[in-house]
Amino acid sequence: MSILDKFAPLGQSYAQLRELGADPFAVTFDSMRSPVEATIDGRPVLVFGSNNYLGLTFDPRMVESGIEALRTYGAGTTGSRIANGTYLGHTSLEHKLAEFFGRRSAMVFTTGYQANLAMISTLAGRDDVLLLDADSHASIYDGSRLSAAQVIRFRHNDPDDLARRLRRLEGQPGDRLIVVEGIYSMLGDRARMAEIAQVKRETGATLLVDEAHSLGVLGANGRGAAEEAGVEDDADFVVGTFSKSLGGIGGFCVSNLPDFDILRVCCRPYMFTASLPPSVVATVQRGLERMVEQPELRQTLHRNAHRLYDGLSAAGFILGPEPGPIVSVRLPDVAVAATFWTALLQEGVYVNLALPPATPDSHPLLRTSVTAAHTDAQVDRAIATLTKIGAALGVLETNNG
Amino acid sequence: MSILDKFAPLGQSYAQLRELGADPFAVTFDSMRSPVEATIDGRPVLVFGSNNYLGLTFDPRMVESGIEALRTYGAGTTGSRIANGTYLGHTSLEHKLAEFFGRRSAMVFTTGYQANLAMISTLAGRDDVLLLDADSHASIYDGSRLSAAQVIRFRHNDPDDLARRLRRLEGQPGDRLIVVEGIYSMLGDRARMAEIAQVKRETGATLLVDEAHSLGVLGANGRGAAEEAGVEDDADFVVGTFSKSLGGIGGFCVSNLPDFDILRVCCRPYMFTASLPPSVVATVQRGLERMVEQPELRQTLHRNAHRLYDGLSAAGFILGPEPGPIVSVRLPDVAVAATFWTALLQEGVYVNLALPPATPDSHPLLRTSVTAAHTDAQVDRAIATLTKIGAALGVLETNNG
Repeated sequence: MSILDKFAPLGQSYAQLRELGADPFAVTFDSMRSPVEATIDGRPVLVFGSNNYLGLTFDPRMVESGIEALRTYGAGTTGSRIANGTYLGHTSLEHKLAEFFGRRSAMVFTTGYQANLAMISTLAGRDDVLLLDADSHASIYDGSRLSAAQVIRFRHNDPDDLARRLRRLEGQPGDRLIVVEGIYSMLGDRARMAEIAQVKRETGATLLVDEAHSLGVLGANGRGAAEEAGVEDDADFVVGTFSKSLGGIGGFCVSNLPDFDILRVCCRPYMFTASLPPSVVATVQRGLERMVEQPELRQTLHRNAHRLYDGLSAAGFILGPEPGPIVSVRLPDVAVAATFWTALLQEGVYVNLALPPATPDSHPLLRTSVTAAHTDAQVDRAIATLTKIGAALGVLETNNG
Repeated sequence: MSILDKFAPLGQSYAQLRELGADPFAVTFDSMRSPVEATIDGRPVLVFGSNNYLGLTFDPRMVESGIEALRTYGAGTTGSRIANGTYLGHTSLEHKLAEFFGRRSAMVFTTGYQANLAMISTLAGRDDVLLLDADSHASIYDGSRLSAAQVIRFRHNDPDDLARRLRRLEGQPGDRLIVVEGIYSMLGDRARMAEIAQVKRETGATLLVDEAHSLGVLGANGRGAAEEAGVEDDADFVVGTFSKSLGGIGGFCVSNLPDFDILRVCCRPYMFTASLPPSVVATVQRGLERMVEQPELRQTLHRNAHRLYDGLSAAGFILGPEPGPIVSVRLPDVAVAATFWTALLQEGVYVNLALPPATPDSHPLLRTSVTAAHTDAQVDRAIATLTKIGAALGVLETNNG
């Protein structure tokens, strides 16, 4: 008898999954030769399953700036932001983020997960209502669970459904906080930001946009889906992460609301955790600068995204609704998906395997992602490898269907 | 009208606090000249308010190992542990932690906060009961809030009260998970581990010990309060952090339970967050080695703790129950505490200010902490500075009381 006995059914499914091939959730990267080339079990692989969208992780200026901060400030702060854990780098990064987004204030968190947890659980109080997209990331759901507010899910990326649910709340006191993501992590589709912003305006709700996957990816300046849709003024809070396009770790929230800084003394996942190490802060700040200095990275990313999407689509794969850094291949069942994933790894292409219930429509996905660091030849090799295995497994749609 | 209006009362109290002196929750450290010497607003200060217990943050081998990892593996992994975020360093650190604790398994988390959140919310399911010490850290409370289990608080560090509450549950189905901390963060008192372990054995409960403040501090090998009390076999799960004695960031859990690794595919705060950057993992692993190689750091820490505790006690301050790395000075009210804290900073001594309701008995605390890196002269200067200000503010007890 052990407290872990309750996980026995999960343990059995997991064991069955592993019998189909390699373990998709226990891959160890032995080395990284570049942002997109790794070694797994001694075998070189192309990485088509990361969130390193701008390919910045090995940027020499970022690395050097991290090294300098490590030498100057030491390995860590050993304290929370509200105690001894705010160094010059933390406040400097907050100023740069506010400046980049053209906002009054910014807060830096130790992880992106904790940024969502903190903002959602703190902003939405007992008398408030949280309106969450049904396909929201786990950190948004966990934040809503920590919050005392009523939680209402609306149909994925459906502004009409959101509006209907908000109208039903008319007359009920309290604030309404809508939470959407710029790009959704499973299928890679963009939020219908303009229409969501309109619903927000019409209903007087507050809007929080998580630009985790869209920072550096969408918008003329890379500020995300709200910028691309021209509705930044409607996004009262923009949350994001440093562990995707910026290649580090941590999260942030920016806002124009005048009293924003009060959140520093009431957001528990901000107050009760050690702050980011100075070297991480330094690499992230330099990453933000590199992103601004090199808009061509965003163009390359989009060219690669279209190349991958078009290639896989032409081969007959069922993909997510639109091209973007995340290109997900829908597969019929878990057995095929696990076999496909294992064969891909054996052929030297690493992608993410996403299984239900984490996937939107109960279908397993090969979550493929592309970066600015991939070459055309690498993208073509990924397409060819997927196509070869997909054909062998019989999952390609024919063009005469 | 804004969603932040609900924080207006908090904003007013915070404004009143700031009028009493400097803002204790918005201190920025401009530079660190050593683990215990900093510059704040251009003024040199001695740091007696960190969790840098072994003073390892500037350890040259840790810093060099972080630099090497930054160059070799890049700034971040951009992925979660179950996707592309497990590098050789992450699994190596897990092996070293398991080895250090003499346990079968170890899991590394991105923050200590998320380690508690993950373990508590996942282990305690709908039919289970969580038994939490009333003075538990915020991460433990937040984990219990994320969990579907019934939550019962027992009187701080009171094994009899814990036993009573467990007996009342007799006959009720489900597991009971007791959560205690090795050293409590506010008053610095140690858990009564031997008696808690006995209650655990007698009632068949499961025990999780958070050794956040006691790793590297208590026990012949620095494994914490459970080691010191000789009850490691009773601690089914030991959670800890890398952001205190080990000078980095991140958290961990070790266990001997055979099915422990199933938690890797069901702990949401483990699965849905980017993994620690390789450079952080490298500094932490080297920190663990340094801690093992240098037991004298622990001895120096305890000598310093006794020196500070005895000096402040002799001066007439009301302190926490026992000497340790955290020496808390109890003060009569918030106004005196804020004035005291500000005067200390002006005299070049930085400590943490802890205010109710975060403090155990509604009294504000000057939370002073000491490290292995402090010299006798520095400890004496802190005692003298506190005593001078304490006398001027009239908060010292006289010896004839």
